[in-house]
Amino acid sequence: MELATTELDLHFMQQALRLAEQAYEAGEVPVGALVVWKHRILGKGWNQVETLQDPTAHAEMLAITAACQGGGGKYLPECTLYVTLEPCVMCAGAMKWTQVGRLVYGASDEKYGFTRKAPEALHPKTQVSPGVLAEACAELLKAFFREKRLGI
Amino acid sequence: MELATTELDLHFMQQALRLAEQAYEAGEVPVGALVVWKHRILGKGWNQVETLQDPTAHAEMLAITAACQGGGGKYLPECTLYVTLEPCVMCAGAMKWTQVGRLVYGASDEKYGFTRKAPEALHPKTQVSPGVLAEACAELLKAFFREKRLGI
Repeated sequence: MELATTELDLHFMQQALRLAEQAYEAGEVPVGALVVWKHRILGKGWNQVETLQDPTAHAEMLAITAACQGGGGKYLPECTLYVTLEPCVMCAGAMKWTQVGRLVYGASDEKYGFTRKAPEALHPKTQVSPGVLAEACAELLKAFFREKRLGI
Repeated sequence: MELATTELDLHFMQQALRLAEQAYEAGEVPVGALVVWKHRILGKGWNQVETLQDPTAHAEMLAITAACQGGGGKYLPECTLYVTLEPCVMCAGAMKWTQVGRLVYGASDEKYGFTRKAPEALHPKTQVSPGVLAEACAELLKAFFREKRLGI
C-alpha cells in the first residue's frame, strides 16, 4: 500500500540526503538512510562499501543495524526507513527480517531496485512511499557518476 | 544451472556444519557458511543475530564480508559459498552484489528461502548445488527448535 508524503517525510528525507552527501564526500555512491521511530532517529547509515571494504555495507543495512542496536530490538514495525535510493534486494530482505513498518524512498533504481527484481521481498505489512525528493536524490547520484566518468 | 556434488563439496559442507554447531552452542539458529577460493577458505561465518543484536548478521553475510576483506575484494566470481541452509532473500542479494560464482547449500528453507521468494535474486552466472548433506543440516536445525519448544 502506498502512503501520501507528509512534511515530516520531507524533513527526514532531507536528513537522509545529508547522509548521502557524506557518502559522496567519502568517494562512495551517494546513498543515505535513516530509521525513525516516533519522530526520533534510531539509526543512521550512509553507503560505506568502499570505506569498510564490505559490499554489504549499504546505507540501509547500516541504518537498520544501528536502529536495532540503538534500542529498536530485532523488530521495527513502528519504524519508518527513509532512504534516498530505492533499496536493492539485499536491503529489502533485511527490511523483511526486521519487519520495518514503512519505507520512504527517493529516487527509483531501475537496475537494482527490489520492486523490479523481487517485488515480494518486503514484509507484507510494510507500507511504501516512493519518489520523495526523488529529483534531488537522483541528481546527487548523477553528479557522482558524472565525476567518476570525467575522472575528476 | 545445477552442478553435481563432489568430495570437496562434502568436505567443505562438513566444515560449514561445524560452524553451524558453533552457532547452536551460542544459542543461535544453527547456520554456518564458508567462502572458498581454490580450496582455500577466504571467509567463515555463523549466525550471530542474537550475539551481535543484529538481524542482518546471518552466516552468509558474515562469511561474505570476511571473504571480501580477507583478500577477495569486492567480487567473488571464482569463489564457492557453502551454507548449511538455503539462503534468504537478503543473503541471496548480497551474493548478487559480490557475484559469487557458485552456491552450495544443505537444507532447503521452505519459508524464507530465496528460491521461492525471489528466484532471480542471484547473479545470473551463479551456479547452484542444493541439498548437500541436507539431512544433517536440517537435523541440527530441528534439534535446535525442538530444544527451544521444550525450554531446555
